[in-house]
Amino acid sequence: MALHSSKSKGAAPPRDVPAVVISRLSLYLRELQHLVRAGRATVSSSQLATLFGFTDAQVRKDLAYFGHFGHPGIGYRCDELIAEIRRILGTDRQWRVTMVGVGNMGRALLRYKGFTAQGFRIVAAFDRDPRVVGTTVENTPVYDVKHLAEFVQKERIQLGMITVPASEAQHAADLLVSAGISGIVNFAPVALSLPEDVALVGVDLTTELEQLAFSVANRARSR
Amino acid sequence: MALHSSKSKGAAPPRDVPAVVISRLSLYLRELQHLVRAGRATVSSSQLATLFGFTDAQVRKDLAYFGHFGHPGIGYRCDELIAEIRRILGTDRQWRVTMVGVGNMGRALLRYKGFTAQGFRIVAAFDRDPRVVGTTVENTPVYDVKHLAEFVQKERIQLGMITVPASEAQHAADLLVSAGISGIVNFAPVALSLPEDVALVGVDLTTELEQLAFSVANRARSR
Repeated sequence: MALHSSKSKGAAPPRDVPAVVISRLSLYLRELQHLVRAGRATVSSSQLATLFGFTDAQVRKDLAYFGHFGHPGIGYRCDELIAEIRRILGTDRQWRVTMVGVGNMGRALLRYKGFTAQGFRIVAAFDRDPRVVGTTVENTPVYDVKHLAEFVQKERIQLGMITVPASEAQHAADLLVSAGISGIVNFAPVALSLPEDVALVGVDLTTELEQLAFSVANRARSR
Repeated sequence: MALHSSKSKGAAPPRDVPAVVISRLSLYLRELQHLVRAGRATVSSSQLATLFGFTDAQVRKDLAYFGHFGHPGIGYRCDELIAEIRRILGTDRQWRVTMVGVGNMGRALLRYKGFTAQGFRIVAAFDRDPRVVGTTVENTPVYDVKHLAEFVQKERIQLGMITVPASEAQHAADLLVSAGISGIVNFAPVALSLPEDVALVGVDLTTELEQLAFSVANRARSR
């Protein structure tokens, strides 16, 4: 599967872009997509900044890592900036994703429609439970985990999503790594050990609630 | 509902703790809980650090914001550090949470068991769709959204979870705010405008996949 690099018009983004900048690109992208759906054609850096409580300098600085996208007197053209951000993020193509673990979290994520809209398609899920192997969940087939490596290699899948219980997450990661996966998003609430050339993003939904609890508890405490 | 402050043995945490430190406390907590389940009684800062690829100085510095928890020659007592971190985070009590929006994402999160284990209980969900109002989803009752304010006030609910589509998220937030909620976790992929005294955490699941795509695409590009 060819990556987009050969077709991209710009140079590769600098490798030292702070992770927080990349996460803000996702925010800008989502907001630009809402603006387009609302019929807006252009947006200024200060309008974009106001939506997030950032400064316009912040927005301009974030985007300046990757090029100059604004137009004097116009601001950003929404469609154009959407295309540029998708190119930067690498989501101007479809990513095929394989899921390991079809329990509560796995089913929940298969039911979530947001991934497909942004270019991620879960093409197959794997489990070892004979009660789910052979079924389909939200149109995604569930296969026996013993066929994972074969599937990943044959279909040249690059991204894996781990949705097994914490105690099985490292084993699932090892399977994905030995199958040759390039990146893993881990929804199991446990730290994983991976080779350096495999990208990893961890998502712990409870962590978000804990951050919120901390804020609320400490506002109350400090009153 | 009394907050824990009156019972906590330490002073209130400093208000200027970086958010990233708080998010690492969540990581430490989850790992300590796994260690305890695996039968471990103590852990050193370097053992904890190794699990995450941090340095032991980082772990000690993070915890030093809140006090001194280690024991010379022993390291940290897992149970003790778990209790301290839960006290710091404010999750040494149960938080009752109300959900707005019982679509795919809402159902998915109601099915997810991880929240309850960490002290968050979704006590009621609200929707405006007559097909779901009056039902229960995973033992959580679904009420008409017109009763939201009354419920939040009567039950003294402090946290709200927004799982409506993006186009309805601000309206849901306004309802929660006017009902007197203290903190909101927003799963809708849109920026919300809230009063300063309401805490906000936004979770965009697709963002995590985009971060992963960026890493994988740029490793491939730079080869």
